[in-house]
Order: sequence, then structure tokens, then C-alpha cells
Amino acid sequence: MEAGEEDISAAAAAANLRNDAHQQQHQQPPVTSSNITCFNNNSVINLHSLTHLTDYLPHLQTHVNPLDSIPFFHPISGFYLSPTDVIFRNILFDLSVSAGTSGSATHHLQRLDSYHRAGPRKHIYFDHSHVRAAIVTCGGLCPGMNTVIRELVVGLWDLYGVRHIFGIKSGYRGFYSASTDPVPLCPKMVHDLHKRGGTLLETSRGGFDLRLIVNAIENRGYNQVYIIGGDGTMRGAVKIFEEIKRRKLKIAVAGIPKTVDNDVGVIDRSFGFQTAVEMAQQAISAAHVEAESAVNGVGLVKLMGRSTGHIALHATLSSRDVDCCLIPEIEFYLEGKGGLFEFLESRLKQNGHAVLVVAEGAGQRLIPRSKEAAEGQAGKDESGNAVLLDIGGWLKSELKKWWGRDHPEEELFTVKYIDPTYTIRAVAANATDNLYCTLLAHAAMHGAMAGYTGFVCGPINGNYGYIPVEEVAGANNVVDTNDHKWAWVRSVNNQPDFMRT
Amino acid sequence: MEAGEEDISAAAAAANLRNDAHQQQHQQPPVTSSNITCFNNNSVINLHSLTHLTDYLPHLQTHVNPLDSIPFFHPISGFYLSPTDVIFRNILFDLSVSAGTSGSATHHLQRLDSYHRAGPRKHIYFDHSHVRAAIVTCGGLCPGMNTVIRELVVGLWDLYGVRHIFGIKSGYRGFYSASTDPVPLCPKMVHDLHKRGGTLLETSRGGFDLRLIVNAIENRGYNQVYIIGGDGTMRGAVKIFEEIKRRKLKIAVAGIPKTVDNDVGVIDRSFGFQTAVEMAQQAISAAHVEAESAVNGVGLVKLMGRSTGHIALHATLSSRDVDCCLIPEIEFYLEGKGGLFEFLESRLKQNGHAVLVVAEGAGQRLIPRSKEAAEGQAGKDESGNAVLLDIGGWLKSELKKWWGRDHPEEELFTVKYIDPTYTIRAVAANATDNLYCTLLAHAAMHGAMAGYTGFVCGPINGNYGYIPVEEVAGANNVVDTNDHKWAWVRSVNNQPDFMRT
Amino acid sequence: MEAGEEDISAAAAAANLRNDAHQQQHQQPPVTSSNITCFNNNSVINLHSLTHLTDYLPHLQTHVNPLDSIPFFHPISGFYLSPTDVIFRNILFDLSVSAGTSGSATHHLQRLDSYHRAGPRKHIYFDHSHVRAAIVTCGGLCPGMNTVIRELVVGLWDLYGVRHIFGIKSGYRGFYSASTDPVPLCPKMVHDLHKRGGTLLETSRGGFDLRLIVNAIENRGYNQVYIIGGDGTMRGAVKIFEEIKRRKLKIAVAGIPKTVDNDVGVIDRSFGFQTAVEMAQQAISAAHVEAESAVNGVGLVKLMGRSTGHIALHATLSSRDVDCCLIPEIEFYLEGKGGLFEFLESRLKQNGHAVLVVAEGAGQRLIPRSKEAAEGQAGKDESGNAVLLDIGGWLKSELKKWWGRDHPEEELFTVKYIDPTYTIRAVAANATDNLYCTLLAHAAMHGAMAGYTGFVCGPINGNYGYIPVEEVAGANNVVDTNDHKWAWVRSVNNQPDFMRT
Amino acid sequence: MEAGEEDISAAAAAANLRNDAHQQQHQQPPVTSSNITCFNNNSVINLHSLTHLTDYLPHLQTHVNPLDSIPFFHPISGFYLSPTDVIFRNILFDLSVSAGTSGSATHHLQRLDSYHRAGPRKHIYFDHSHVRAAIVTCGGLCPGMNTVIRELVVGLWDLYGVRHIFGIKSGYRGFYSASTDPVPLCPKMVHDLHKRGGTLLETSRGGFDLRLIVNAIENRGYNQVYIIGGDGTMRGAVKIFEEIKRRKLKIAVAGIPKTVDNDVGVIDRSFGFQTAVEMAQQAISAAHVEAESAVNGVGLVKLMGRSTGHIALHATLSSRDVDCCLIPEIEFYLEGKGGLFEFLESRLKQNGHAVLVVAEGAGQRLIPRSKEAAEGQAGKDESGNAVLLDIGGWLKSELKKWWGRDHPEEELFTVKYIDPTYTIRAVAANATDNLYCTLLAHAAMHGAMAGYTGFVCGPINGNYGYIPVEEVAGANNVVDTNDHKWAWVRSVNNQPDFMRT
Repeated sequence: MEAGEEDISAAAAAANLRNDAHQQQHQQPPVTSSNITCFNNNSVINLHSLTHLTDYLPHLQTHVNPLDSIPFFHPISGFYLSPTDVIFRNILFDLSVSAGTSGSATHHLQRLDSYHRAGPRKHIYFDHSHVRAAIVTCGGLCPGMNTVIRELVVGLWDLYGVRHIFGIKSGYRGFYSASTDPVPLCPKMVHDLHKRGGTLLETSRGGFDLRLIVNAIENRGYNQVYIIGGDGTMRGAVKIFEEIKRRKLKIAVAGIPKTVDNDVGVIDRSFGFQTAVEMAQQAISAAHVEAESAVNGVGLVKLMGRSTGHIALHATLSSRDVDCCLIPEIEFYLEGKGGLFEFLESRLKQNGHAVLVVAEGAGQRLIPRSKEAAEGQAGKDESGNAVLLDIGGWLKSELKKWWGRDHPEEELFTVKYIDPTYTIRAVAANATDNLYCTLLAHAAMHGAMAGYTGFVCGPINGNYGYIPVEEVAGANNVVDTNDHKWAWVRSVNNQPDFMRT
Repeated sequence: MEAGEEDISAAAAAANLRNDAHQQQHQQPPVTSSNITCFNNNSVINLHSLTHLTDYLPHLQTHVNPLDSIPFFHPISGFYLSPTDVIFRNILFDLSVSAGTSGSATHHLQRLDSYHRAGPRKHIYFDHSHVRAAIVTCGGLCPGMNTVIRELVVGLWDLYGVRHIFGIKSGYRGFYSASTDPVPLCPKMVHDLHKRGGTLLETSRGGFDLRLIVNAIENRGYNQVYIIGGDGTMRGAVKIFEEIKRRKLKIAVAGIPKTVDNDVGVIDRSFGFQTAVEMAQQAISAAHVEAESAVNGVGLVKLMGRSTGHIALHATLSSRDVDCCLIPEIEFYLEGKGGLFEFLESRLKQNGHAVLVVAEGAGQRLIPRSKEAAEGQAGKDESGNAVLLDIGGWLKSELKKWWGRDHPEEELFTVKYIDPTYTIRAVAANATDNLYCTLLAHAAMHGAMAGYTGFVCGPINGNYGYIPVEEVAGANNVVDTNDHKWAWVRSVNNQPDFMRT
Repeated sequence: MEAGEEDISAAAAAANLRNDAHQQQHQQPPVTSSNITCFNNNSVINLHSLTHLTDYLPHLQTHVNPLDSIPFFHPISGFYLSPTDVIFRNILFDLSVSAGTSGSATHHLQRLDSYHRAGPRKHIYFDHSHVRAAIVTCGGLCPGMNTVIRELVVGLWDLYGVRHIFGIKSGYRGFYSASTDPVPLCPKMVHDLHKRGGTLLETSRGGFDLRLIVNAIENRGYNQVYIIGGDGTMRGAVKIFEEIKRRKLKIAVAGIPKTVDNDVGVIDRSFGFQTAVEMAQQAISAAHVEAESAVNGVGLVKLMGRSTGHIALHATLSSRDVDCCLIPEIEFYLEGKGGLFEFLESRLKQNGHAVLVVAEGAGQRLIPRSKEAAEGQAGKDESGNAVLLDIGGWLKSELKKWWGRDHPEEELFTVKYIDPTYTIRAVAANATDNLYCTLLAHAAMHGAMAGYTGFVCGPINGNYGYIPVEEVAGANNVVDTNDHKWAWVRSVNNQPDFMRT
Repeated sequence: MEAGEEDISAAAAAANLRNDAHQQQHQQPPVTSSNITCFNNNSVINLHSLTHLTDYLPHLQTHVNPLDSIPFFHPISGFYLSPTDVIFRNILFDLSVSAGTSGSATHHLQRLDSYHRAGPRKHIYFDHSHVRAAIVTCGGLCPGMNTVIRELVVGLWDLYGVRHIFGIKSGYRGFYSASTDPVPLCPKMVHDLHKRGGTLLETSRGGFDLRLIVNAIENRGYNQVYIIGGDGTMRGAVKIFEEIKRRKLKIAVAGIPKTVDNDVGVIDRSFGFQTAVEMAQQAISAAHVEAESAVNGVGLVKLMGRSTGHIALHATLSSRDVDCCLIPEIEFYLEGKGGLFEFLESRLKQNGHAVLVVAEGAGQRLIPRSKEAAEGQAGKDESGNAVLLDIGGWLKSELKKWWGRDHPEEELFTVKYIDPTYTIRAVAANATDNLYCTLLAHAAMHGAMAGYTGFVCGPINGNYGYIPVEEVAGANNVVDTNDHKWAWVRSVNNQPDFMRT
């Protein structure tokens, strides 16, 4: 078991839950901050528990959810979720293993990880007229950021009656920077926001100063803080949440994971990812046209993906125009048997052209580093990420060298290199991502209203759940090249695996 | 338990599986056609079992999967799936219930339905040089049909070395019709097919004649039949599969569920659905612009959805421009308190315009039927579906009547009605659906090669699985209005629920 | 010669122009309101003259154009246009005719129609701080309306320093309606307007009440009125302009012709037209896919075009998927030799499918009218346009009757009918139209500032010019089927001409 | 007068033309290869004459145009054009000048340049069964190349009954290269070609070997050669045409000017240009979003345009998101009063962000060249074009240096640089360009069939005409910064003019 998880018997769990129901009648908080393990006698469920404001502020009062009095619709039975509603995470089983000894069975039963379902709760821990919500966006652009902002504003306003919503400008530093004031937000201002790319709130990297940020939150009276950002931002969110807990403030901290690369762990996929894959088709298609229209034409497209190849891989499989896709998770090589040049040679002979897609983080070990870089003196951006070497430019140059070296002069050869990064990430979210962002924002809002804190929300096997923010800040969703899924996908593209044999 | 499911003890299951492993070493078929129930001592897993050719042809020989000898890549450990690899279907639990008496626990454990995972198998039941595959498309258009065709052709050709692949033209009747011959297909012919809407094979409704179809399959020597179509088509596929089994033919029948409405049960969503939702944005946006640009403007969009409102609902939530979405699963009414007119009146007062989305199957009980229709004399199309009354046209006319009746003459009012059906369904699949269709086609191909028959494939909680075709033919995926998901979604759109109170 | 044109000798014209130059030095208005005819001794140029405010208010003072003091750029020599800058309209000649007798030469020389060029003038007739501009949009939607509004606002504000710009809501009736107030406009409000379809100002048909409108203009102190609308709107603009002249008010009336049908005379094409043709491709493509994917499939698309077939024709030639395009200017027939059915029969035999495009105003004489319609009791909309019968629906029904009548039952046949009207006209302008609308708005603004009134602006052979509004209100730009251009275009599409032979 | 133009009296011209008419009756060629000057007594028209095959092969026989016997339509009177049908080119006049002395009048009358109209001729000089047409594409990609190819094939096949049409692969070298054979083309092969970017025929730069090319043309029996390419290609076409004339071969050489930059002289605009401007919007929009979403964000977009700024300028004016557009025709500077930095500083202060568009050929004199480049040792690509220095990269770096130098460290600053070149030029033509390319191909085909040679076709003031190829090969269409049009356009964008004052 990982830290923060514990097994308790189903009976104890049931007792807890009955207590919980009892407590609610007395206007006391549900027990939500301990791991609940149950199932029937011998089975084990690991519930990834969340922090609730009542964990450190035990006497908070609850309120009836104002959704009860929305004039247009009536909460049906089952509308409100309770702390016992969970989602299973690991749902792939090999029955032959679980049918073995009790040891291995236990091993497998541990895989019944589960998470709290996201959604509105019958009782909430904020009086809507006292809510002061702050929204901040950090890091690079990602399609859907504006949709999340819009939906937080419209949802808080229309469903919960909140009237004090503030946008923090230019990332974390906006909490304390003298040069920028929070922007009061209302539905009218954000009406069409989901149709625009970028972020209304501006964004920046870095600028994280824990003390100044929490002071600002406290001084300005924000009691719900919505933080939209990547893994670095989420590590910051963990610190903010812990400092707030330390100060015993009634402030809910909700994270909304944003990474166009889709490298967030636990959740199914991150918002903006599908839009990015969609947009990448255009660049791949252009590369394909350029390659087809030349003699021995090679189209080369660099796509986002610092440590993971998700966009490159999905874009490749969606497009079906790509001969080979290179990702950070697979080391590749150029020369010799099984290498990229050999493969390209055969594809050019066969088709007269070829298309390569390369994730920005791929092949970093192949590129010769300058002295400073090698010594690690350079190489971090303001978010603390390593500065990547330009795999696209390097590959283009290596391809040209190879051709010149190994082919007679009269054989034409062309490489067209396309880097569509900013064009991809600056678009508005497509329909799929707009819906996703909408439910994400509502999930975050319902969670904060229900008194949870230090959590992020996201889809787990298609259902929205709440995940402890420190779990997401530490996880990383790489393409698992030892998994069946990757192997299968590789077979679909019918490309080399760069295993020297 | 439903028909076709049985509980056996985990020990027996394990024994089965060990036998299975043993048999495989002797080049005999895995036992796949019985329900396997296991977990640990007291838990129960319902495995939805599939028919395997060896169920009625026990002495078939297996072959090593030719993927083993693809030059470009090497199947890693874990690449091939085995019959014990399963996916859980029901993954949402209420722990408070399962923690109760053993009775309710059992009830819940039954929810651990599981399905075989889709993917390549180590041993297959066809020699690639003997495969003759037939592909047919039936029913209305849906984005992605051409992608499925393309991927079946390219996958069978490139990965399994199949060289006899035929397209059956114009639906089921193409198997036996004198006026149309099967079209030999090869990768070159279908190279760009995934970028085009519609179906290369033409399609038609009806034309199902069991005897003629199975005779043609037998006479033409097809031993793999891939059927792409909706629920009516799948009911036909069940009959074909059963007749083939009755004749004890070595012919694998694989279904690929196609319904732009997303009304197929069991699977997460059907292909083309996301593309349709994406395309519907355009129509909703136009309706919104028309409404905004008029005085008391109402934009009205009819979207596909005969018995279910999935497209309407998703398009509504993606767009955020829609004031009210009407679906077949919810009866609505026009007049009086809580009715549509009252709601529209308030929105027009507030915003000066409003947008309605209506699924084609909504409100059928509201529209006065002509005498013949009422007597059931009219009203079935060639697929046997009831002909729907035109809810869009009727609603437009009712809205105009209402305004004229209840408002002074000088108050302007405009309804713009948009029916984008054909423009939506005729487009090529977007990136998300292209990838989905690709994996779907590969899943079908791997299943047929592995000797499964009478199955369809599709994603279950994000993982591709095989499902008995009769199960899918009988299921229906309506919007469950008693479920939390619907209630939540309704709260997002903040629209009336038409419950008379 | 038409009314309002007169020939004067070149010498007199030159004298006029010299006088003009002289007068300007004395701060008096240029003579612009008479026809100037010149060239060399025997040639004749017909200049279509404009009304200038000084024609009825001879003592107006001029001001230096504030463009002179924009900080960012410096008006180069040639930046300002003068009243002698003209564009030739008729530029196609048959030399063999003009080389004949002096009679025919004269005939041809009359074709040297010319118009004043549009653009900024060195001296203007308004003090920027006194300008109160009103902008109104009338009639149906057309891509680019918002761009024109935006550019008028931004241009007047940034280039001329105007600070009082008002949007009149809901068309002509907005000038006097009690229920709607003018909206003050500024650059910030309209910043992104060109990226949105429709019209910010709402629009409506009818509501023209000359007295109330001119009273309102006068009472509210508007001295520049920009009217965006179709031919009916322009006939209204003529009346407003004449009433203002009668009242001797210093109010410039500028029209901006808006008709997605491209049926405005004199100018090259109307704004939004290219966007509409672009958007129509989608519907044609869908019709093509539906037709191709069916057995004997016919795709039928109705496009805008009440009295002219420009959109249908351009969309057809751009798409190349259309077998036959039916427009109002060509009467067609269904039955018999040379008829539509015969042609369709041959195309279905040849290709298995066919696509028809029909302009909404085509074939009106073929459709049986109901008794009331025939008696002319029905049939005008609020703009005074005849209500058209539904050619699309009628054609679909006739096609089905024909097939059922002339073909054996087992031969399948499908007609898919698409009416994309609202989806087309509600989009934002594309790049080409955005640039066009921008220059149109600037042309209108510069003309009004220069003191011209009762004019519209538009491109004439690629150059922006000013045209008397009454000329445009009376003209109509139909597809000239007796012209080479049409014949050529017809040959490109290789379709029947429906001349009974 | 330029070379190749001469004035003859109108009487003589008329005589010529009457002779012409007379000769046609005797099945002899029209006189088309001399300049015709006419009008009435004192006016002057300069007709830019074309070479006709009969100029050096006087005894060629004519044939009746097979369009006469197309079953579907009937050439109306006026369908066929004659050599006396001309278009005026210069249509902007300043009447005040022409009204002056006879000297200046003459000056102006010389501006009545005219060109032969393009279109089908009643009599043609090829028997359709003897035509062997070759089509070649050279140089870089441009939207619409495939449309031109498609329309040549379909037009020659369907309208003229030509059955021997060949595609020459990989540019000029394809005529003689051993490694590539001509591809026989037919309508079926090119059916959907206009919906795909690039060129079916592949393309390459260079490879021009006059002798080998003309030998190949002669040996393979091509008698119509269609050359699609830019100015370098057209200079090659001049040489091919002249060598063919020297050898007295009955081979028509038709050029179709292709340059996405729109830098071809005489014609209104080149094909693909509008599509490129449309596509550029996406990159500008992304740059705008990136700039808006950052603190002091600058978006920088490099667009095509080696020697001219047409794309940059049109894209800027269409987008309205651009603060400053830099083109090759205007020298700009960075530092000091009126410089780019000063302007940017003010815009960032005002709006918090700014967008720059720069044409690839702009600012070349500002960038420090390496020693070799300075010595002219490097710097030509295979088309013989100077290799341009990377203005985008340089500008980005200069902007960063400037900010770092002139601003305190804590002030954030971001430059996002987008180079969308390949994504823009590889798309399929939009509707506007598809129609244009269609008429262009038909114009070329009709001209070649009519016996003209050494010509290109293109729109002149909106009408399709024929232009001597040497005239186009020598012309260049730069943005005329001394012209009113540029000044006006500059005022619209309200940007600096970089005139040091």
C-alpha cells in the first residue's frame, strides 16, 4: 500500500458510513478524510481519500445546496452524490492470475483502487453570499483554459448564487504582484469565452512565492481558490493547500490539471488534448502533401510532448499518413540495421515519400550538447523544466547529411520541417474538450462547495472523480511501452520498434 | 442473472483456465465459450462469453500469428492477449450499500460484469492465404464508415497478409443482388478513404434475406464477414451468425456497431458520434447568430436522435449557446407553468433571444397524427424503423402561433429553423473518431482471426472489448434520466425539467 | 443616355475642374455634382456624378483632413484623391465594331462610363468633434455585416477622431421605435466583432416610415447616416436622402449594399458573397457524399438566390461535384428530350449518382400555385419581396414520382435534400470578405467626411468607387445568359441548357 | 512605348480586322500577331499581341470547334470570342490631367493598354484526335495546382475529346529524366484532385535544359505543352517557346502563372493567393491569442513573400489583429523615433500585447550577413533565387535583446514566433481559387486549341485574357508604395510608415 492508504474492514467502513449519515442529521460533517475499505468479507477496496475542511475545522456549519431552489429544475433522487459514491480505477484483469493463490489474489484486489465521484452534494459548507472565489491560470497555453474559466464563473454565479469571483492575472505572481489587480468576473464578461483560445487571465511561468501567495489569499478574503495548471503548478498547489491547512483557514483549494501533453497521471486524459490531436492533423496533412509533391520528399512534424509522446502517437494514429512516430519513451537510432535511415530508405523506394512525426522530447540523448549544456549550467526555463534541444531541426539536418552521403548527387531529396506548436495550442477547444472542460469546472466547483480541499478533479474511466492533489502532482502519465496498449498501437502503425536485435 | 450467464466457482474457473493453458500447448483451442466466474473465494465475476468457431468445429487447427514475423517490430511480452484478459464494465459503486447485508453485497457483486479484451492473440485459427474477407455497410451514413473499411483492408493486408478482401455493395442485398458484384479491395484503393465521408461500398436499408445471404457467403467462399451497421443490422447479423453456426461453417462473423445516434448499448460510445457532435456546433452557432441578430429571435436546431438524445445533449453542453434541449427521453409540454413557452418568454425578456435544440425523436406524442398514421397503417421505413413526425417543423409552427396569440402585433418575433442532418452525417471522421475507428477495425480483425464469431467490438470504460452480438442487438443506450449523470448534465444547462409540479 | 447623364465637352470639363481647384483655395466646395465629360477632342466619358452637401448647402466650411496629423504615418503625395479621379466601368471592347462608322464608335464611346474613386479627400466637410454618426442594418443576415460595423466605428474613431457613434437597433424601425434605444459604440465594444456572424445591431425587415425616420435623425442630431442593406433598403435610403435634401439638412447619407445573393448592380460583387460560396461547398460536398454512398443517389442542394443564380453558379463551378445547376435566369423543364429527367437518367447510368444545385428562385413558374397565391392575395414578406415557392421540396417530390413511375420497383433510388441557407448566411466573413468589408467601410466613411451624400460605395473592376444610391437601388445584377461569360461558364459545367430544340 | 508595341492608325487596324474576317471565311488564320491600334480618329489603343502558330506555319488548317457538337448545350451567339475582343488594362484616370494639353493626353491615352480576351474560338487549329498534351508543374507548392491539372485534363477530355494527356513528373527535368516516365492522365484519375493540396505531378526546382526539353517534346510528339510555374519557370517557357518557333514545330506553349506570393505582373492576382491569405488568418489568430494571453506578449508571424508583401498585407488587413506589417517594399528600422521599438513600446503600454507580421523578404538589409554571404559566394537556391536571411528568427532575437536592455528585470516579456509557410501552401484551394483555377485552365486550353502559343492567361480587371509569356516573365507585381492604394491600406492599419522625419 502506498502512503496515505489503509485497509479497514468492511464492517468498520459501514459503521463509519452509518455514523456519517447520523452526523449529517446533526449538521455535522461527513467523515470523508479517512480511507474506507470495504466490499464483502475478504475483498479490499482502496479508497483514495480527500482532505475535507472539517478535518482541521471540525465545527463548520453546513448549508442546504442552493441547487434545491433553482426554479427551472428539481433535483431528482440520486442527483446528489454522497461520500460513499466511488469509481474503480483499475478495471483490466487477468483472471488466470487472480484465480491463483490467495497471495496473488490479494495483490490483485489491491488494484481495486477507487476514488470519490465528483458532483454536487446535498449539503455544502459555504454560504453563497460569503463565497469569494479566485481563479488563476499558470504555465503554457492549452485549448480549453477559457472554457474552464467561463464555466467556473457561470456555474458559481447561476447555480450557487456566488457574486464575488475574481480572476488573478498572469499566473501565481498575480496574487501578490503590485502591477496587476484581480479582475472581478461575471457571466456577461465570459459569455463567449469558450469560443476563444488562450486565457482571459493571461498566464506566466514561475512566480511562485508561497508566503506572498497565501498572505494575499488570506488578506483578500478568498475562500475558494481554483488553480488551473500543469504538474509544476500542482506542486505549488500542494504547498498552498498545506500552508492554508497549517494556518487553519476555511479556504478550499481545487486544482484543475492542465497539460496539453496529456502527461497527468490518474486521470483518463487532460483537457485540450483532443483538440491538440485534432489540430495536429493539419500539420501532418501539410507535411504529407509536401512530401508527396516532391521527389523523395520527407515531411517532418514536431509535436508537443516534453516527456511523453501522447499527442504524437494519437495524431499519428488518427492521421494514418505517418510512416514513423518518434516519442520520448522509445529510444531510437539513425544508422544501421533497424535504424531510422534504413526504414526511410525502404519507404522512399516503395512510396517515393515519407512522413515523420517527432515529439519535442524525443531523442534528446542523440543530440550532441554544447559544453555548457552538458555541464548542466544551462537548461531550465522559468517553470523549472529542462530546456529541450531542438530535435526537429537536428533531425532535418541529419537527414540531409545522410542523403548527401549515401546517394548519388542527381537524386533529388527534400525535407520539409513543420513546427505547428503555437498554432495548435492557441485554438479554442473543440466540442469534445468544451464539454470536458465544462464538467471539469462544475466538478471542481461542487467539490469546493462541499468542503473538500487539496483535490483535483478529472475523469477516471469515463467518470468524473476527485483525486488528492499531491497524488496528481507526483504522478506522470507516460506511454507505457511495456503495456499491451502501446504494443497494439505500434502494430497499427506498422513501424520499427528500434530494438537492436 | 441474465440468460447466458452462469456462476461457477473461482476454483473451477481456475481449473478451466489451467486446462486452457495446457491445451494451448497441445495446439488445441482455448476454452472461451463458457462463462468464467472467479475472483477470490466469495466474489463473483460475470464474464460475458463469446462463441468460438471451435465450439461447433472442435478440431480446427491453430496457426502462429503472422504478426510474429513482421519485419519492423517485435511483439513484446504482453503484446498478445489471452482469453483470461477481461475488462470490468460496471465501475461505479455506492460503498454504503455494498457494506450492508450479504444479500445486497451479492447484488452488487453481480455488477462485476466483465468482457473479453480485444486485441491480437498468439494463436489464430486462419491461414492467411486462405482468408476471404467480406465487408458490408448497411443503413444510414455515419462519419467513420470509410475509416473502418480502410483499416480492415489495410490491417488484414499488411499485418495478416490477407490478399482476398471484398467489398459488398449497397448493404445486405449486395450479397445476392444480380445487379452488383463484390469489389476486390486493396490498400492502394483505400489509401485516402479515411479522409472522405460516406461509404465507399454504398449502403442501403433493408434487403435482408437470410437464406440468400448465407448462401452467397458460402458459395463465394467468404470465411470472415465484417458487418458494419446499426441495431437492425446487428439483429440481422445475429441471424446470419446463427445460420452459419447451424450449417457448421468455418466462417467468423464480426459486427462493428454503427449508429451516429450513439444508441448502442454496452459500449462507451459509437463511432462517428464525436464528429457529429462537433459538426452540430456549426448549426447551433448559426441558430445562435440568427437569434441574436433578430428582435425576439429564436433559433431552432433539429439534431439526429430517433430514440435517444445523446447528440442533442452533448452538442448542447459543448456549445453553451443553447437555452433548452429537448430529447426523446424527457416528455415536455408547451403551455402552462413549467412549460416551454413560459421558459422561452422569460429568456426572451432576459436576453432578447433564445436557442432550442430538439432531437428528431423528441415530443412525438405531442404532435397530432393524421388518421392513417394513428391507425398504424403508415410509418415504417425500409429498415423497419417507425417514420418520425417532424418535430422541428411542428415546433416552429407552434412557436409562431403562440407568439401571435399572446403578444401584441407590433412585437417582432422570428424563428429560424435549421436541420443540419445530412451535412453532419456526411463528413469525414474527425481525429478522435478516426483513431477510434482504426482500433475498432483492428479489434474486429484480431477477433475474427482468433476464431471468435458472433461478436461485436467496442470500447468499454475506455478499453476495447468483445461483446456477444446478440447482447448488443438487444441493448439500447438511452439517456438514463433517473441517473445522476443526466441530472448533473441538466444542472449544467440550467434548463427546465418539465416535471409538472 | 440615361437620366442624370449629360455630355459636355472636354474643354468645359477642364474649365470646371480648374474652377474647382480655384474654389478649393477659397475654401469653397469642389464642383462635383455635375456630369463631367472629357477625354480628348472627340471622345466621351460619362462620369456618374454624386450629390454633395454643398449642392444644397453652398456655404459649408471645409476642414483639413485629420489624417494629416495621425502620428504613425504621413500622407504621401497621391494619398488624397480628388474629384477628378475616376474609374472606367465598361472595359470589354470589340475592336471590329469600334473601328466602323462614327455612329458605332459613338455608341461604344458611351460605354466609357466612369465613377468617382473612393478614398480620403484632402479637405473634409465635418469637424470631427461635431460628427454624430448613426449606423443601421436592415434585412436578412449576410457574412460581413459585423465587419462593416466594426470598421466604421474603428475608422471614424481612430482616423477621424469621431467620438459619437450610435448603433440603431433592429433596422429602420429602430430609428423611431419606443422599445429600443440607440447604442453608443466604441472600438473596444467592436474589437472582435469581425470574427462573429450576424449583426450586433440586430436587423429586421420593413418598418420603413420616412417621416418618423428623418425626424429621428434630425432630432437626435445625427449628421452621418450609414445604411447597410439590400435593394429594398437602398430604395428607402434614396427617400431618406431626398427628404434630408428637401429639408436642407447637413446630413450625409451613405449606403453600403448588402446582399448575399450578389444581385446588386454596378459593383463587382457584394460583400459576404465569397463567404457564402465558400460555405456552400460544405453542403454540396455533403450532398455529393450522400449521393455517392447510395444506389442511384441524388443529392439536391438549395442555395440562396431569389432572382439571381450567382451563388448557385459560383458554388457549382467551385465545387465541380455538381451535375446540373438550376438558376432563376434559365427556365428549365423536367420531362422529354433535353429535360432534367433525361439528363439525370444518363448521369445515374454513367456514374450511379448525381448532384443538383438549385437557386431558391429557380423554376417558380413550374410549381403549381395554390388558388390564393395565384390570385396574388398572398405572397409578400415584410420587405415587400414575393414569397417564393419551395423549389427544393417540390423538386425532391417530382424526382421521386418520376423514378417510381419510370423504373422497376426493385431499383433503389434516393434523394437527399439539403437546405443550408441559415448555416451559410450566419457565419463570419472569410478573409477575402473581411478585407472587402474593411475597405467598403473606409470608403463610405471617407465619402461622408468629404461631404458626399446619397451615395453607395463598392468595387468597380477591382477599384473602390462611389455610385449614386438611386442608380444602385434601381439596378439589378442578374446572370446575363446572353453574355459570353455565362455561355463559357456553362461549357465548364458541361450541363444542359434547356433550350428546346 | 515598350518593345513589341506599336501604334497604327485606327483605319489600318480596321482594315486589318476586316481582312481578318475575310480570311476566316477562307479557312485561313486570323491576323493576331501584330499590334492593333484603333479607337476613333485620335485615340490610341495598344493591343498586346500574341504569337499564333500560323505566324510561322502559315498553312495550318482550321477545324470547327467540337464544342459545337456537345450534346448538352448549344453555343449561343456570342459564345465564341474573336481576336477583336479585348480587355482594357489601365482603368483609373485623373480627368484633370487628360483634359490638359495634347501631350499629356497622349500620355494618358497610351494607358489604354489592351489584351485579347480568353475563351473558346469558333475555329481551332488542332484535330482533337491528334492532340497530345503535356502538363508540367515547377517550383514550390501553391494551393490550386491540382485544380489546374484536373481542369486541363477534364476540359480537354470532355469538351475537346482529347484522349492523349500526359503528366510530366518532377518539373522541367521530368521531360528528359531517365528515372521518371510521363503519366497518362484521364478524368477518372483526377476526379477529386481539386480537393487535395500539392501537385499530383510532383514538382522540383531547376532542372532546366532547353535542348533536352524541346527534344523530348518533339520526340514524344506533344503538340500542346501546359507549363504551370513561377517567374523563373516562365522565363524557361519563353525559351522553350522560342526554340519551338525556331524549329517551326506545330506545338502550342501555354503558361499558367503560379506564385503564391502574387508577384506576377499584369494579372489581377495569381491563383492560390486568396487561399494563402485565408490560411494565414489562422497563424495570425494564434499569434494574437498567444500575445493576449501573456504579459507584454508579442506575437510574430512570418508569411510568404520574397520580393513582395502582398500576402502579409492582405492577411494583415483581413485579420485586423495585427499592429504592424513589415514588407520588402518598405524599409523599416528598429531603434529611435518612428522605429519599430518605439511603436511596440506604445502598443504594449496601451494594450498589453502586440502582433507583428513580417514578409519573408522584408528587412533583408538590416540583418548582418555572414562573410560568405556578403561576398556573394552563397545564396542561390536551385531555382536561382537568392537565399533569404531569416527575418523572423532575427527579429525575435532583436526584440528580446531590446526588452532586456531597456526594461527592468521583473517586467515579463514574451515573443512567440510562428512560421506557417508549409501549412499554408500545402492546403487545397478554397472555393474562390478553385473557380479561378478552373477558368484559368479552360482559358489556357481554349487558347492553345485556337492556335495561340507563347502566352499565359490570367484575369485582367476581372476578365480573363491572354498575355505574351515574355511580358509576364519580365514583369513583377510589387506593392506600389507610391500609389494611393498602398497609402490607403496603410491608413486602414494605422501603422508607422518608417519614414524618418
